[in-house]
Amino acid sequence: MDETFFAGVDGGGTRTSLILADAAGRELARAEGPAGIVDPRHPERSAEVITGLVRQAVADAGLRRAPDALCAGLAGVGNEAERVAVEEALAELGVAGRVRVASDGEIALEGALGGGAGILLIAGTGSVAYGRAGDGRMERCGGWGMIVGDEGSGYALGREGLKAALRSVDGREPPTPLLDRFLETLGLEHAREIPPWAGRVEKADVAALAREVLEAAELGDAVSMRLVRAQAVDLAGHVGALASRLAPWPGEVPVVFHGGVLQNALFASLVSGHLGDTGHACRVRPPLADAVHGALAYARALVHA
Amino acid sequence: MDETFFAGVDGGGTRTSLILADAAGRELARAEGPAGIVDPRHPERSAEVITGLVRQAVADAGLRRAPDALCAGLAGVGNEAERVAVEEALAELGVAGRVRVASDGEIALEGALGGGAGILLIAGTGSVAYGRAGDGRMERCGGWGMIVGDEGSGYALGREGLKAALRSVDGREPPTPLLDRFLETLGLEHAREIPPWAGRVEKADVAALAREVLEAAELGDAVSMRLVRAQAVDLAGHVGALASRLAPWPGEVPVVFHGGVLQNALFASLVSGHLGDTGHACRVRPPLADAVHGALAYARALVHA
Repeated sequence: MDETFFAGVDGGGTRTSLILADAAGRELARAEGPAGIVDPRHPERSAEVITGLVRQAVADAGLRRAPDALCAGLAGVGNEAERVAVEEALAELGVAGRVRVASDGEIALEGALGGGAGILLIAGTGSVAYGRAGDGRMERCGGWGMIVGDEGSGYALGREGLKAALRSVDGREPPTPLLDRFLETLGLEHAREIPPWAGRVEKADVAALAREVLEAAELGDAVSMRLVRAQAVDLAGHVGALASRLAPWPGEVPVVFHGGVLQNALFASLVSGHLGDTGHACRVRPPLADAVHGALAYARALVHA
Repeated sequence: MDETFFAGVDGGGTRTSLILADAAGRELARAEGPAGIVDPRHPERSAEVITGLVRQAVADAGLRRAPDALCAGLAGVGNEAERVAVEEALAELGVAGRVRVASDGEIALEGALGGGAGILLIAGTGSVAYGRAGDGRMERCGGWGMIVGDEGSGYALGREGLKAALRSVDGREPPTPLLDRFLETLGLEHAREIPPWAGRVEKADVAALAREVLEAAELGDAVSMRLVRAQAVDLAGHVGALASRLAPWPGEVPVVFHGGVLQNALFASLVSGHLGDTGHACRVRPPLADAVHGALAYARALVHA
C-alpha cells in the first residue's frame, strides 16, 4: 500500500488548525496549535510550529513518513518575500514532499468556493473580501485595518455605536438606548469615561460592542438601525468592487459570507439586500468547506497538477 | 499710585501664554512658557509653571507685588476635582490676590464673545464647541477625542481622506488624486504602506493631511469634496445641538470659528452654509479677542464682582 496523503494548515490569528487527509479526502488526523501569525523577521518560527503539528498528526495517524504535500494558509503573510521565506523554511525542515504557503484569505476562498469563481466576504473583528475570477485570477478588496479601513466590521459597528451614543449625549443625535447598554456592558458610570476606555482597550473589545448595536437595531432603535445600515452598505461595496474587477461573470456572482458579524441575521440580510446596488447579480450561498479544507485542496493540487 | 492689575493665562496643549494688564486693559507685560497641560496626579506642577511665568512678567513690568487676581484657562482640567486642585495649589503659592482656574474652552469662549451669549466652534487637530446662553449657562458639545469623536476636525478630514484613497485603490470609490498626494507627502511608495504608517504616527500627523484633502477638494476632486462636505455637516451639527440646548435666543445666534481647519475658506464656507440646517438663525462673526484676554476678563471680574 503506497497511498499519497496531504496536510492542510489554517494558521489564523487565534489558532493554527491542521488536517491530514488521503487522496480521497478521507481525514487521517487533526491537530491544533497556537496562532501561526508570521513575524516577518523570524519565518523559521512559524515553520517550526507547523512542522511540529504535522509530525504529531503523522504519528497520531500511525503513518511512517512525511506527507506528499503540504499547504499552509497563514495570517500575516503580507507580501511575496515573507511568503517565500516561510515556504523555504518549511521545505528546509522537510515537513512534506512539496510545500506551498498561501495567505489565510486564499485558502478560505478556496475552501468556501471549492476552487470555483466567486467572492468570499469576511466581516469579523475586521473586514476584507477575496474573489476569484472564472480565469483563476485572485483579488483582494479592503482589509486595510482599523484606522483607515475595516468598513462593515465588528470594530466599525462598535466604534460607530460609541460615537452615536456620545453624539446623543451632546444632543447631536436623538436619544438612543445605546448609551445605557454600553455603560452597563462596560461597567462604566458616565459617558465621559467612554473616550479613555476606547483609548486603552484592544480592537476586539470595541468589536465586541457590535452585538449591542445589532441588538438595539433589532429592537427598533432608529439610531442603531441607521448606522448598521450604513455599515452594511459599506461592506456590500467590497463585493461590488471585486465583482467589477473580476468581470465578466458567466451568470450570477456566487458570494459566501464569513465571520462573526455576518452570522447576525439582520446584518446579513441588510448586506444581502445591498448586493443589488452593486450592479451585479449576486447569489449568497453557504461555504462548501472551511479554510483547512481549502489548504488541503491546494496541497492535493501540488502533487496532481 | 495704587492701581490694580491682573494676570490672564492661556495654558494650551502647545504652550502657555500670559498677559499682565491694568484695570483699563492696558498690557503691562507678556510671557510665554511650555505647555501647561494638567497632570491630574501633580496639580502643583502646573501651578509652579504658571507662578514662575507670573513672577517673570511682574519683574519685567517693574512691579513690586503680585497681581490682584489671576485667571488661568488650562487644557486638561477635565473635572471639578482637578480644577480645584490646581486652583488651591496656585493660591498656596501666593501667585495673586485671588485665583480662578477654568478650562481652556471657557476662556476662549469668554475672549471670543466678550462675555456675551453665543457659540465658539473649534476645529483644529480635534474638534469641540462651547456655548454660553443669555442667562450665563455654559455648555460643551463634542470634544470626545479621535477614537469616538472629533467629527469635522483635521484628524477626521485626514483619516477620511486616507480611507477614501484606499477605497479608490480597491475600486470601491472612483479614482481620486488623493492617493498620489498622500504618497508624495508621506514619502511612501505604495498604498499598502499607508495602514502601517497610520498605525505608528501621532494624531497631529494624520491631521496634517487635512490640507491635502481640502486642496484636492478646492481643485475639483469630487471624492474629496464629498468627504469635506460630510465633515462640514458633522461640524455644523455641534452648533445646532448647542443652539438648541442654550435656547431661547433673543435674535441670531453669534458663532465664532476657531482653529486651523476653520481658517480654510472652503471648509469655513461649507460649515457656514450648513449652519442653516440647524433650525437656528446663526451669524458667523470674528472673535472679539483671544483666549488670554478671556482669562484677563475673568481675572478682572474676580475683583470687581
